[in-house]
This record gives sequence, C-alpha cells and structure tokens, in this order.
Amino acid sequence: MLRLTDIGWESFAALPLEAKRPYLARPDGMPYHTLFAQQFDRGLLERLCALANRIRFINKSKEGALYLKNVLAHKRAMLYFSQPSSRTFLSHLAACQILGITTGSVRDAATSSEFKGETKEDSIRTFSSYFDMIIMRSPEQGLAEKMAWELSNSDRPIPILNAGSGKDQHPTQALLDVYTLVRSFETKGGLDGRTVVFCGDLLRGRTVRSLSYLLTDFRDVRQIFVAPPELHVPEDVIETLKSKGVEHAVVDDLRSAVKEADAVYMTRIQDEWDSSKGASAKIDTSRFKFGAEELKLLKPDGVIMHPLPRRDEIATCCDRDPRAMYWRQMRNGMWIRAALIAATFGFERSIMNCGY
Amino acid sequence: MLRLTDIGWESFAALPLEAKRPYLARPDGMPYHTLFAQQFDRGLLERLCALANRIRFINKSKEGALYLKNVLAHKRAMLYFSQPSSRTFLSHLAACQILGITTGSVRDAATSSEFKGETKEDSIRTFSSYFDMIIMRSPEQGLAEKMAWELSNSDRPIPILNAGSGKDQHPTQALLDVYTLVRSFETKGGLDGRTVVFCGDLLRGRTVRSLSYLLTDFRDVRQIFVAPPELHVPEDVIETLKSKGVEHAVVDDLRSAVKEADAVYMTRIQDEWDSSKGASAKIDTSRFKFGAEELKLLKPDGVIMHPLPRRDEIATCCDRDPRAMYWRQMRNGMWIRAALIAATFGFERSIMNCGY
Amino acid sequence: MLRLTDIGWESFAALPLEAKRPYLARPDGMPYHTLFAQQFDRGLLERLCALANRIRFINKSKEGALYLKNVLAHKRAMLYFSQPSSRTFLSHLAACQILGITTGSVRDAATSSEFKGETKEDSIRTFSSYFDMIIMRSPEQGLAEKMAWELSNSDRPIPILNAGSGKDQHPTQALLDVYTLVRSFETKGGLDGRTVVFCGDLLRGRTVRSLSYLLTDFRDVRQIFVAPPELHVPEDVIETLKSKGVEHAVVDDLRSAVKEADAVYMTRIQDEWDSSKGASAKIDTSRFKFGAEELKLLKPDGVIMHPLPRRDEIATCCDRDPRAMYWRQMRNGMWIRAALIAATFGFERSIMNCGY
Repeated sequence: MLRLTDIGWESFAALPLEAKRPYLARPDGMPYHTLFAQQFDRGLLERLCALANRIRFINKSKEGALYLKNVLAHKRAMLYFSQPSSRTFLSHLAACQILGITTGSVRDAATSSEFKGETKEDSIRTFSSYFDMIIMRSPEQGLAEKMAWELSNSDRPIPILNAGSGKDQHPTQALLDVYTLVRSFETKGGLDGRTVVFCGDLLRGRTVRSLSYLLTDFRDVRQIFVAPPELHVPEDVIETLKSKGVEHAVVDDLRSAVKEADAVYMTRIQDEWDSSKGASAKIDTSRFKFGAEELKLLKPDGVIMHPLPRRDEIATCCDRDPRAMYWRQMRNGMWIRAALIAATFGFERSIMNCGY
Repeated sequence: MLRLTDIGWESFAALPLEAKRPYLARPDGMPYHTLFAQQFDRGLLERLCALANRIRFINKSKEGALYLKNVLAHKRAMLYFSQPSSRTFLSHLAACQILGITTGSVRDAATSSEFKGETKEDSIRTFSSYFDMIIMRSPEQGLAEKMAWELSNSDRPIPILNAGSGKDQHPTQALLDVYTLVRSFETKGGLDGRTVVFCGDLLRGRTVRSLSYLLTDFRDVRQIFVAPPELHVPEDVIETLKSKGVEHAVVDDLRSAVKEADAVYMTRIQDEWDSSKGASAKIDTSRFKFGAEELKLLKPDGVIMHPLPRRDEIATCCDRDPRAMYWRQMRNGMWIRAALIAATFGFERSIMNCGY
Repeated sequence: MLRLTDIGWESFAALPLEAKRPYLARPDGMPYHTLFAQQFDRGLLERLCALANRIRFINKSKEGALYLKNVLAHKRAMLYFSQPSSRTFLSHLAACQILGITTGSVRDAATSSEFKGETKEDSIRTFSSYFDMIIMRSPEQGLAEKMAWELSNSDRPIPILNAGSGKDQHPTQALLDVYTLVRSFETKGGLDGRTVVFCGDLLRGRTVRSLSYLLTDFRDVRQIFVAPPELHVPEDVIETLKSKGVEHAVVDDLRSAVKEADAVYMTRIQDEWDSSKGASAKIDTSRFKFGAEELKLLKPDGVIMHPLPRRDEIATCCDRDPRAMYWRQMRNGMWIRAALIAATFGFERSIMNCGY
C-alpha cells in the first residue's frame, strides 16, 4: 500500500488526481484522507452507500442510535470552517454526533481572525494536537491536500476530510448526490441506464463537475446539460465524458430534457463568483427553472434534486411532490458523511456486521 | 385528537390562541410544539412543575444525572437563535445537555447571514433534516407558528420550541416564572390566594403579559401593577383579568404594594423598543426600583423575582437576602425547560416513574 | 482549612499571592479555584503531572477513553472567553471532552456584546446557574479572582478556572510548560539541575514570568534570559530569583546560551501591547530567532519550546527535529488541563487508582 510518507510533497502534488488515490486510502480501500471526488470508484461508492443505508437503519431504534453513539465516542473531531457554510457545517456536525464523536469548531471570520500572524499550516497543526480528525472548509484551493500530506508526515497523522475548498472540490457533496440517486432507484432497478439532466449554472457549480465524473463509474448513465449559453458546462467535463464513451448532450430546452429525465439536477446561479458585480443578473435564466409545468412533464418515478440553497430555480409549489428529493438529499448528506467518517476510522465492518 | 395536518395554514393562523392549543398537543396532553404561553392550563403547568422537580431531584446524584443523560441521548436538537440571547441560549443548551441531547447551533448574525438568499422557511427545513427538534428564537412574530405548521405537514414533522419571538411570545420564560412561584410557596400552602406585584416597564415586557395570563389559572391570585404612567400595563391585559374575574389593581406606589406582596416581579426598562432613541431615559423611573427600603417592607416569606438581565431595578444589596429569588429563578428556567423537552418527546411518565 | 467564605473580599484581595493559596484549595490540597500560577508548589505540580500522565495513558485504548468520558459526564462547564483565543479555548474544550464534561460557550465579541447593560458579575452569576464550572478568559485583570470570591459566597459556589486574564495571569499555560519540561526529562534524570533559556519578548510575555516562578520550586534549575534590551525580563522577576537564591543570567547572545541549554523557551514579540503602534517593529530582533544554526548548537537531548502562535522566531526547518517540543507542548496543554479539571472535582484518586 502507498502512503503519504512514501512521497515528497512536490512529487505528490504533481500527480494526476486518480494517481493520488492510493496514497489516501486505508488498507481496506476506504479513504483515510478524503480530499476529492476522484478518490471514489464504483466499488467504494457502493460500499459507502451500503454503510450509509446500514447506519440510517440502525439509527431508527433508540437502542441502535445508542450503539452508534458509542462507535466513535473515544474520538474528537475539529470542524475548521474558515469559509462559513452552516448547511455543510451542521451536516458534518450531525454525522459526528450520530457516531458519538465530540467536536470543536472554528466557523466564522471573527473567531478565526485571531489566528492572524500564524500560518494556516500552524493553525491546522494546532488543531491536530487536540483532535483526532479535521473536517475543513477553506476558500484556499489545495490546502486540504497540503495539510493531509503535512500531517501524514508529522507525529499526529490524523485524517483530513475536505468539506469544500474554493471553486475546486467538495467531495462529500458529490457523495451525497450519488447516494441520493442510488437510493432513489434502488428498488426500481438501480442507477445504471438512467438519464440525468443537469440544469442551471453548469459553469461554476463544482457539484455538477464532481457528480458528472462519478456517474461515469456507473453503466450507461446518459448525461444531459441544460444551461444558458453563458453558463454552460466547461469543455473539460465534456472531454472527460467523450474519453470515457459516455452518452451525453448539451441542449438549451429544459422541458424537452425533463421528459427524458430520470433525475433532474437543478442548480443555483452562483453569482458570488461573478467577475463584475451583477454580471449574472444580465443573463436570461427564465427558461432554466423548474416549476409546475416541468413537474407535469416529469416521469412518475423521476426525481428532482438540488444541492441547496435554492433561490427560485425550483418553485415552492413542487416542494410536497413525492418526486422532490431535495430535502431528503440534504438528510442523505448526513448519512453518507456518517458512513464516510465511520469508514475513515475503520468501523465499516463492525457496523455492517453489528446485531442491530 | 386534532393535528396540524388536519387544518390549512390560513384557517389555523386565524384561530384564537386558546383554540390552537389542541392542534399542538401530544396524545398525553403535553405540548408537541411549544409556541405560546396560552397553551398551558393549570393541569399542564402542574404536571410540568412536578416533572421539573423530579428532574432536579434525580440530577442530584451522579447515578441520577447519568440516567437523565441517557433519556434523550438518541436525539439531536438545533438551537436556531437568529436573535441573539446568551441567557436563553445557554439555559436551553443546559436543559438539552441534562437529557443527553446533542446540539447544533446558529446563534449570531455573522454565521446566519450566509443563509441570505434562502428563505427562512428553507433554512428551518434544512435544520429539520439534521435534527430532531428545533429550538428557535427569532425577531419575526409568528415564524415559530408558521414553521410548526410547515414541518407538521412535511415528512420531517419534528417539534418546534419557541424560545422567544419578537415582542410577542416567550412561553418558556412564562413557564419558569410560574415554576419559581410554585416552588417558592410549595411548602407554604401553595400559590392560590397569593398577591403578585408587577413593577417596572409593564408596557413592553412580554414576560409580564404571559405570567399575568398564566396566573389566572390559579385560584384567587391577586395582581397589582406598579409602573410609571408611560409604561403601564396594556389595557388588554386588564381586560383579560376583568373577564376572568381576577382581583387586580393598577397603582403607582411600589412601597405600599410591596407591603401586601407575596411576590414582587421587577422588570427592566425595555429601551431597545423605544420608537425614538432615548425616549425611555426621559421617564422618571426612580420610584420603581427595589432597594434596601423595599426589602424592609417585604414579608418574611415574600419573594423578589426578575427575568434578568437587570440594570438598577434591584439594588445589589438585595442579592444575598434569602428572599431574592432571581438567581434561582434562572436556574429554574433550566429545570422547567428540561421538563418541557422531555415531555415533548414523551418521556414524562418514564422519568416520573424511574427508580432514582 | 481556609475557605473564601471565611474572609471578606477586601481582606482577601489585599493578601500576597502565596497567602491566598490555601483559600483556593480543596481539602486534598488540589486547587478548587485555579486563579494564578503561584498556587502551585512542587508537590502539587508533581501530582498534577502524574495525573496528566495517567490520563494520557488511559486514553490510549478505547476502553480507557470511554472510562474517562464517564468520569465527569454528570458535569457541565461554561467556557466564557470574552477575550478570544481559539488555541486556549480548544485546548480546554478538548480537556473537558476527554472527561465527558459537556460544555457551553461564549467566545466572541458579537455574542457577548448582548450582555451589555449587565454587569460582568451578573453575567458570570448567570453562567453559574446553568453550569458546574466556569472556565474564563478575560482582558480584565483580577476578574477571575473576584468571581471566585463572589461565587464561593453564593449558593452556587462552583469552581472558577482562569484561562488567562489580561497581561496578568495564565496559570494553565504555566502548568503545561512545566509538564512539558517534566515529560522531556522524566526518563533522563528529571528536571532538577537543568538549564532553561528564555528568549524573545521577555518583558510582556506572561508565560515567561509564570514559568520562571514555578521553576524555582525545582532544585538547581538555572535560568538564562536572552532578549533585546528593550524587551528584557522585568526587574521583579530577577528580584524573585535573587531572593530564592536561584542561579540566573541576563545575556544578549542566543547562540552561546543555546550551547548551555537543556531547554530553550522561545517567545513571540507581543506587539499587541505596544503603547504606540509599530513600536516593536523598530526593535532589532534578528538575533533572537531560532533556526538551523541554533539547532546545530543544541544538545542532543535538549528541547525547543514555544507557547505558540509563532511568527518567525522558530524557523519551520526545525519543525521535524525530534527536539522540537512545541507541537507536543500544545498537546500537553490538553492533558494537564484535563488533569487539573479532574482534580478540581475531586477525581484525582479514582483516576490514579482505576484499573485501566
């Protein structure tokens, strides 16, 4: 097995993402550090989904919930969110709590500003002194990766879980999206052969990029991209699909796409990345919203997803339709993160085999 | 039993408060959602006070405390305080911790601002994905009620506990006030027939309004209101007392009132509600403060209460007098909240009957 | 045994520090309130170091960690950090979590500002209503001491742990420094007879002052002070060493000192205390930094310490040298604080004697 202590930082950083994968894994193949979506192949995704299902089931009874709360009761996790995100924060917090992990946190500018004058490396090394895992969200691309290497080469080689780094990676969001798709179709023949429609700001949404990649691990999943011309899916995403021989289409009519969709993945216009303020507002996005009309066109067992928060991409009149999966998708995030964290600490097998 | 799924939002919102009560209750009569003080009748108040007494007693031994920490160890609560209040926050937090509930929180503007662009309904729906109860404080009147209805009609119908909504309602403050009065007189013949004096800013203090209402559930509790003319108790409070045939008086001399009081409930001038800045400062409040002189006039087994924080309404020279109940009143808040939360999850009976 | 209820506030405040010691102790000699470094004599330091070692060892196994998490599972602590400090906050938090203590916190200006209009005494009295211990950090010199006296004379006489008060005292930092020295030499003949070099801003670093004092409790520990003239160790520290007959030297050449050192204690320039902005920047500190050259001069079993955060006083090229103790020093802070808190609640003996 390869380890981050076997390779220098520059050599590691220069590797293509998929070649980095073995350096981040535990002996059982589960991730030790979780840094990017490309760490996960289909086998790993299925093991994590199965573990998430198991945790979700066990947690239904009080006895089961108390069993789970004991699994990692001897561990403490640091949630270091230098880029605030209450949703992602709370989801990871809840995942930790399900497993009995106690937590500390830095989650806003005011508290973390006081680290000024200290390098981020020293701050994270500090957290590693007090905790057994660092769940970090940072606007700085690559920081999680650097810290994983640094800690692995220190005498506190604790795992790093990347909870979002800049425009770059948000691997657990990709996991929860896959888990939601797998759950949605698990009693209906599975995810293979399905059609997934992505709609909205496909240029800047890192969730689309990651999910598109992970879906290539499944068989015959067709991908359709619907967006205004200014916000269309980047060429390299399309190149990846071509190189893997994945059927796909780039279109501009949501309604036609919805008719063919098994899943519609709506996204928000990410105007926080506008290079000039208000640039997004000038784009005509009116035809890229999901409302009552689109609902009528969707298959009876199709699903609507959204990474949330939403603005008006999905009309609230859809919220109580049984095909609206976006609320459950959020809760799935908690379960798959609990699965990932349990696996990180080597508890996959004991949870899968426990008596609950 | 009526449920919030039996009635549309507009119909529910239009009901008088007392008519809403059955929609919010559990089958055992305890509240499921706790939204306003008018949900509690005397029977319910006595059950909650008894449960709070029981929890307080059990918690005295380490074994008892560990038993309590197991009661709701399988539950997680979200403390969503978009209007900051450390006292109320910490009291609810402590109540959760006594029962073993793990918690997440949003408690300041900086952290919650990032929800901008998302409706409050969506934010709360998000929290409901990760937690089993939402304890919420909000400047927005009626939000807790709306969310209770929304969640009850979703597939995550978790309970809402209103920890203060604008100028409007703060039901657990009313509960802790009643609990403090009940405890103060429980070995002295009880609360029936007592005289309670309210003093200070009776116009804008929602605690006075709620407590005055709940006291009408007890027999022959006389209410005396003492305030500067500008800050006197609103007419509708007096109307309620009249309609229920409760003996009461509106006066302007604190010392005379203290002589007759079994309990004196002091309140702070709520200048944060001033329509023009500094308006309150122009009011002569000098005669509405409790100090050494008033202490001399108070009965030997009378009590002094205050919802805190105080400014100078009660002189610090009173702090160590055994009749000063305001510190204990705060701690009572923790016990009655623990009782309420345990009851919300259906654990009244098991705690009342446990072997500790 | 003396108690804080035996003496008035003014009389107590007027006592010299060492004379205050017995008022703050438990019957077993361990601290009840921890307010200043001068509370600890060698016997107490050795008991605390032994307890920290024990806790560190027990915590290595899952069974041991779960045993520890049960020790104080019936207690709740308030971390009241009106002066933010994430490092000290997280270290105390982790210490509480190791022992199973649940916590509440106020840790930033935004949250605590809302206490405005309430005295600090009332705020802390509030916390004492909900928690079993207050861990407080405050810019206000003497506040911890005042509150220890106030609470001891109230009906909620819970312990106060001073986690730093202004320029004044930071007793647990002194404890972790001593613990790090004791651990560093425990298999090499102990701390007696060693030479400790202090370097950097010796004028304003309260850690140097406290550690220098505590080292006088050990036998023949020589102290060497190295600093720019503007930042040299205050005269009263030297006076104390003289009065106790401790060998010491005040020099200006770090490299010569390093050659003689068993431990080098580096400190940061504390420019936040500059009376005029930028004053420190004018001081030539270039000769008071530890880098590759100094590392070559240090004894093979010498140690490098730093209270952190660092700027450039220690070059990062030293970080992986086995003599670099500053990361472990931080982690020692967690263990010694866990020991102190356990001792505060009277659990020294049961932990020392437990079967793990």
